[in-house]
Amino acid sequence: MNQLHPHIHADLPQGDSPILVEVWRGNLVESRHRAIAAVVDADGHVVKAWGDIEKPIYGRSSIKPLLAIPLVESGAADAFGLTEREIALACASHNGEPGHVDAVNDWLGRIGLDAENLECGPHYPYHEPSLHAMVRGGVAPTRAHNNCSGKHTGFLATAVHLKEETKGYIRYEHSVQQRLLGILEQMCGQNLGDVPRGIDGCGIPTIAIPVGYHALGMARMADTKGLPAARADACTRILAAMSHEPWYVAGTGRFCTDVMRVTGTKAAIKTGAEGVYMGALPELGLGICLKVEDGNGRGAEVVMGHVLHHFGIIDDAQAEQLQQSLQPTLKNWAGTAVGSIKPAPLLNETAPF
Amino acid sequence: MNQLHPHIHADLPQGDSPILVEVWRGNLVESRHRAIAAVVDADGHVVKAWGDIEKPIYGRSSIKPLLAIPLVESGAADAFGLTEREIALACASHNGEPGHVDAVNDWLGRIGLDAENLECGPHYPYHEPSLHAMVRGGVAPTRAHNNCSGKHTGFLATAVHLKEETKGYIRYEHSVQQRLLGILEQMCGQNLGDVPRGIDGCGIPTIAIPVGYHALGMARMADTKGLPAARADACTRILAAMSHEPWYVAGTGRFCTDVMRVTGTKAAIKTGAEGVYMGALPELGLGICLKVEDGNGRGAEVVMGHVLHHFGIIDDAQAEQLQQSLQPTLKNWAGTAVGSIKPAPLLNETAPF
Repeated sequence: MNQLHPHIHADLPQGDSPILVEVWRGNLVESRHRAIAAVVDADGHVVKAWGDIEKPIYGRSSIKPLLAIPLVESGAADAFGLTEREIALACASHNGEPGHVDAVNDWLGRIGLDAENLECGPHYPYHEPSLHAMVRGGVAPTRAHNNCSGKHTGFLATAVHLKEETKGYIRYEHSVQQRLLGILEQMCGQNLGDVPRGIDGCGIPTIAIPVGYHALGMARMADTKGLPAARADACTRILAAMSHEPWYVAGTGRFCTDVMRVTGTKAAIKTGAEGVYMGALPELGLGICLKVEDGNGRGAEVVMGHVLHHFGIIDDAQAEQLQQSLQPTLKNWAGTAVGSIKPAPLLNETAPF
Repeated sequence: MNQLHPHIHADLPQGDSPILVEVWRGNLVESRHRAIAAVVDADGHVVKAWGDIEKPIYGRSSIKPLLAIPLVESGAADAFGLTEREIALACASHNGEPGHVDAVNDWLGRIGLDAENLECGPHYPYHEPSLHAMVRGGVAPTRAHNNCSGKHTGFLATAVHLKEETKGYIRYEHSVQQRLLGILEQMCGQNLGDVPRGIDGCGIPTIAIPVGYHALGMARMADTKGLPAARADACTRILAAMSHEPWYVAGTGRFCTDVMRVTGTKAAIKTGAEGVYMGALPELGLGICLKVEDGNGRGAEVVMGHVLHHFGIIDDAQAEQLQQSLQPTLKNWAGTAVGSIKPAPLLNETAPF
């Protein structure tokens, strides 16, 4: 473990996280979001940083691309004939739209299991029309509706393929989670045996890793030159699957999906709870990790959009096309435009290349 | 206007808003909320302050108690035979539960109008069982379901009573809004003719007033000694109505309602969008205003709860009873406790009296 000790440093003074996003209403900034953000290459060089990127954070769902590595690397994906849709689902925080849930249930059937084997709790879909359709029909949500059900099915598929006990696969001590811990240590270059950890919304451990080292893990997915062949291949396939099947990574109307539809294979991005966002940029060989101090996702989206624009992953014409994702106009209940969410001056100084 | 120039000063250095709330997961602080908070008496003396209380903010829905003054002061409330329930509804951001919506529609009927005269947009109830019941029944939300419909009905009732044109009552130039501007100037001691303003979620103007002066406005509702008799009486009746009918101010499971059920007439508190909270403490003659920098309501609730505890409005036994409101335990989708939201050290240093 801990083979990597890349030198990661911040361009900006440490201390309070800088204000990177402003929420305007009328002619006043009504709210502000502070964030830490790092863009790092696979050798650990910091290309761009805001705030104290040595600060440990939980990656939450934004590290799902890293957590999908064993599914491909172990041979499970090929053994079960998974397509890019299922690999994208393994990286997803999906909307719970029928297409997501059906794909998960179908996949579970092919590994000889069903939704009852998922150890995440059930919840109604994030996607309002899907939620309303279920409520109208008196249909209760199952564990397959949980936004993390694809990730969990990936864990189960790996365990089944490796002939491991599936029960308890969300526990820190289980081989599924210990394998993931090793992958995070290797990819992020951190010894994680004794760091803070918590339990995620879907029940699995979430591990504290500094922002910059999370970005390093994503950079190493994007630029696989230093990785063993099987891991390199797994990383490349995972990012390609996300880029090719962005609807399976999130869903209708979601930032991840809408942005990846535009960026294609230039970027694989993934949101996480509490204002975390990560990305891998294969063409540039860079990884991105950012965390909004207060946990608000609206701030994380604006920072991610700006970083992608800055690095030319989104060009000016695409930025215009993605305007409502990148710098959303806020409307009130009557549909009147009342404000907007924008990069703050400090972030805006970082003009697109 | 501008009769008041109270001397308001902060105890703490200005600059970055201090971190007052921590969101814990496992053994790490995952997210943080910064806030400005002021507790002020009716003479403008600052009893307690965190951060730069001279910073202008939009009071959003938390100033509804102030906005309800004309309804009572004009004689409209008595002319239409309003009970404390309707006065509480005029101060409400209600859940859209059937009891709220029925009361608004009934009140509208008594002033010769209906929900189509409300100029707020429709939205589904915040209260999940009420939302689900509507979706199951194929019932679309009306303007009466808007969480601000009680306030709007109060505006209409005042206009009808004063024989003003009701149409356009949400516009800044309308007599309803100009009357409110005058009340805010007098109660908060600020000249507001040329300050930043925006449009609120329900369509009315929202006016920028510094945190400390918002608190002054609430203090003058709580301690009416300097006010003309009709205004003093209106303020006292409004706070009493909120305290006596807390369900009509918010609804089932809501912080405002749950806390006021415990504090009784010791406190009238009101939440607002973007992390604002205000309160009036009649027994102590104090007003409270706080604003979470990032706009997150979960942070605002924890600060308000702590301030109420600090000032003895909530005693230790009540704090225990209100534990899940004051320092919520976070559970994941499977119901496992995974973290908590707590006062940060700086706020916690302010121990209860």
